[in-house]
Amino acid sequence: MMNKLGAECIGTFWLVFGGCGSAVLAAGVPDVGIGWLGVSLAFGLTVLTMAYAVGRISGGHFNPAVSLGLMIAGKFEAKDLVPYWIAQVVGAVLGAVVLYIIVSGSPDFTGVGGFASNGYGEASPAGYSMTSALVIEVVLTALFIFIILATTAKSANFRFAPIAIGLALTLIHLISIPVTNTSVNPARSTGVALFADGPALAQLWLFWVAPLIGGALGAVLWKAIGTDD
Amino acid sequence: MMNKLGAECIGTFWLVFGGCGSAVLAAGVPDVGIGWLGVSLAFGLTVLTMAYAVGRISGGHFNPAVSLGLMIAGKFEAKDLVPYWIAQVVGAVLGAVVLYIIVSGSPDFTGVGGFASNGYGEASPAGYSMTSALVIEVVLTALFIFIILATTAKSANFRFAPIAIGLALTLIHLISIPVTNTSVNPARSTGVALFADGPALAQLWLFWVAPLIGGALGAVLWKAIGTDD
Amino acid sequence: MMNKLGAECIGTFWLVFGGCGSAVLAAGVPDVGIGWLGVSLAFGLTVLTMAYAVGRISGGHFNPAVSLGLMIAGKFEAKDLVPYWIAQVVGAVLGAVVLYIIVSGSPDFTGVGGFASNGYGEASPAGYSMTSALVIEVVLTALFIFIILATTAKSANFRFAPIAIGLALTLIHLISIPVTNTSVNPARSTGVALFADGPALAQLWLFWVAPLIGGALGAVLWKAIGTDD
Amino acid sequence: MMNKLGAECIGTFWLVFGGCGSAVLAAGVPDVGIGWLGVSLAFGLTVLTMAYAVGRISGGHFNPAVSLGLMIAGKFEAKDLVPYWIAQVVGAVLGAVVLYIIVSGSPDFTGVGGFASNGYGEASPAGYSMTSALVIEVVLTALFIFIILATTAKSANFRFAPIAIGLALTLIHLISIPVTNTSVNPARSTGVALFADGPALAQLWLFWVAPLIGGALGAVLWKAIGTDD
Repeated sequence: MMNKLGAECIGTFWLVFGGCGSAVLAAGVPDVGIGWLGVSLAFGLTVLTMAYAVGRISGGHFNPAVSLGLMIAGKFEAKDLVPYWIAQVVGAVLGAVVLYIIVSGSPDFTGVGGFASNGYGEASPAGYSMTSALVIEVVLTALFIFIILATTAKSANFRFAPIAIGLALTLIHLISIPVTNTSVNPARSTGVALFADGPALAQLWLFWVAPLIGGALGAVLWKAIGTDD
Repeated sequence: MMNKLGAECIGTFWLVFGGCGSAVLAAGVPDVGIGWLGVSLAFGLTVLTMAYAVGRISGGHFNPAVSLGLMIAGKFEAKDLVPYWIAQVVGAVLGAVVLYIIVSGSPDFTGVGGFASNGYGEASPAGYSMTSALVIEVVLTALFIFIILATTAKSANFRFAPIAIGLALTLIHLISIPVTNTSVNPARSTGVALFADGPALAQLWLFWVAPLIGGALGAVLWKAIGTDD
Repeated sequence: MMNKLGAECIGTFWLVFGGCGSAVLAAGVPDVGIGWLGVSLAFGLTVLTMAYAVGRISGGHFNPAVSLGLMIAGKFEAKDLVPYWIAQVVGAVLGAVVLYIIVSGSPDFTGVGGFASNGYGEASPAGYSMTSALVIEVVLTALFIFIILATTAKSANFRFAPIAIGLALTLIHLISIPVTNTSVNPARSTGVALFADGPALAQLWLFWVAPLIGGALGAVLWKAIGTDD
Repeated sequence: MMNKLGAECIGTFWLVFGGCGSAVLAAGVPDVGIGWLGVSLAFGLTVLTMAYAVGRISGGHFNPAVSLGLMIAGKFEAKDLVPYWIAQVVGAVLGAVVLYIIVSGSPDFTGVGGFASNGYGEASPAGYSMTSALVIEVVLTALFIFIILATTAKSANFRFAPIAIGLALTLIHLISIPVTNTSVNPARSTGVALFADGPALAQLWLFWVAPLIGGALGAVLWKAIGTDD
């Protein structure tokens, strides 16, 4: 069990440090910056690489909404849910801490600003409403968990699942960064919200509620459609 | 059969919500927007991810022109064609509805504008003529169906087919967004045309005619070249 | 044999229509254009997709320099070299013809301009000398053929070869578009040179000589290093 | 053994010529340049392609920190460490030499400038401090080696390891180019530092020390978490 929790902690560390790190350090640099396309790719690659690395140890969730969805679908034991959630949040916070240390070495450092946190309303990158944020986070998390369940089913071509799942996360970011800065992952939202300036902590509830509802819906959707597992 | 139609509906929902959603929400944002490269990647990833997820359930068409091409090639039963088409169009419309709800939560929302619809002439992103639009949609759909048939043939390395097919759709968008905003898929065109401002509905006929002709041609081309199935 | 030549013709058509098409139509559009990164991805994806589609029929060369390199390495029969070259050039010319038809439907069409042709000196995208062009085309083609031979060897993980080879072509474009607009493929250079304005035809010799030398060198390099085939 | 050293030399040549070449030649061109996103992709693809090509010959390290980490993890013999390091540095220097020849054919060549070298403080692309550079190079190299060990373990889905490892290097660049121009590889840093203007040689020590510490830490981390090898 410690190996599993260690794997979840490292994987979620990588997701936050890599995904949020690329956003904070490299996205907005003029001319050569990687933009939201680069950030979308970075988030997806954190999951693709860590799912191939430690997926066979812990299942490779790195996300409380994924653990919940797998539990509802009967693929993950309820008694492990809270330990997994704790390991994921610890990993996310550690990722944010290391990122904070690096960012503070910038020559014009005066604070971390938004620190790649998630938000709605005035804290949405393009000002989208709370309703838009709720809808898009629920829908995207539901489809994300649906894809995870479908691609890791016994009859699936499951050796490719980390590619499909990682690139699904890239796709999700390509769609929704303007709306909420993309969460679909309460641990990722929590890690950076603890350090961010602005309303990130006050809005954090939405990035637990919406992804967890989405995770549950995705599991229900898969049980309705899935024919082979 | 309901599982198959459900899978086609969800897959086409994902294609429209993900592909058109990335275009509407994230493509044109100044400096950090994902541009047509990001949109091309998003469309391809909707197919890559859903083909790995539900390809073994429904075949993973998500596109009336693909269903037609597979039928002509003898890989799909004629009696299932109309049900598949209906499921695909329903999924596409649902994708557009959810996207509409999210977009309407934008702080400066006054209408959906083009809403990632397809067009020619004045409605072409770069003003290309109806002839250019017809030619490029027929040619690209034909090659798309050719690649689908070739990569899913029994003697093919078919476990990789979702990668090849999804990235073929990315490639198709990299070429043709400036000309027609890229359809090669009548369901995708229909879903957003119902909501778009401008001539999208009036021009929708072309985005049924050209992809369906292309789908048929692709099947004929494969039957002429294919040696092993 | 006709199936093989048909496959080479279609594959090279796709390479020129897709790769050069993305460059001509979509690369330079302001703000949302795909840039050289998108063009690099497009060229690579033409090969990735067609190698999975028809690689088992014709070998999936789509390039006279690849056919030569494979022949020198003993993987391809000398008597098939000229037929393959002809099929490849025919496919490339057809790709350029269809692209020409589409481009001529642009509202401000006055000529095709460079038409994604290859060049050096004044015709190099960034003005690089003939020596730079020769060196980079020889080196990149040599490494390209080396990777092709190594990833398709019997002891290799050859089911992944189309991914490695296609993405190697993407990488090659990421490096060398500024220098020569990237050839490493005499058929691709010939197809568009026939239509391009400027010195493309007069400089075409270099884009036969350098890739063919590179292809031969790559085969020699592989025979020196390869331990397992 | 000569085959192994030849493979390491060619692979590291490719990493420096391709990765640094894309940065020097194509990253900063206005409008259509590939930016840091393109450079990140290029570095990753050098490893993805060469790991599929020669991974079964030499292991596909192309990086002194990787060789050290594998040795500490018990996957690589200590007596081969120095020969591998030499082959890697020779390959890196050759890559820089060929790149130098090509760059010197630019019409406005007056010197190579930074030549894609690594740096901190004034030599950091965005001015980050030496501490930030140390932390990020140690952390990223540690996770890189962790991913390499995990994805190539006997019980792993190791046929996909070149994809996971190559794209991990892409991810690493997406995060850290602004901080140090991204090393995680002492050979890569050495190859270009020999030719670069500015403090690259004077700062080269950090890009040996930090990646080697990171490589060792990554091996320790894997031995603590890995359950199956």
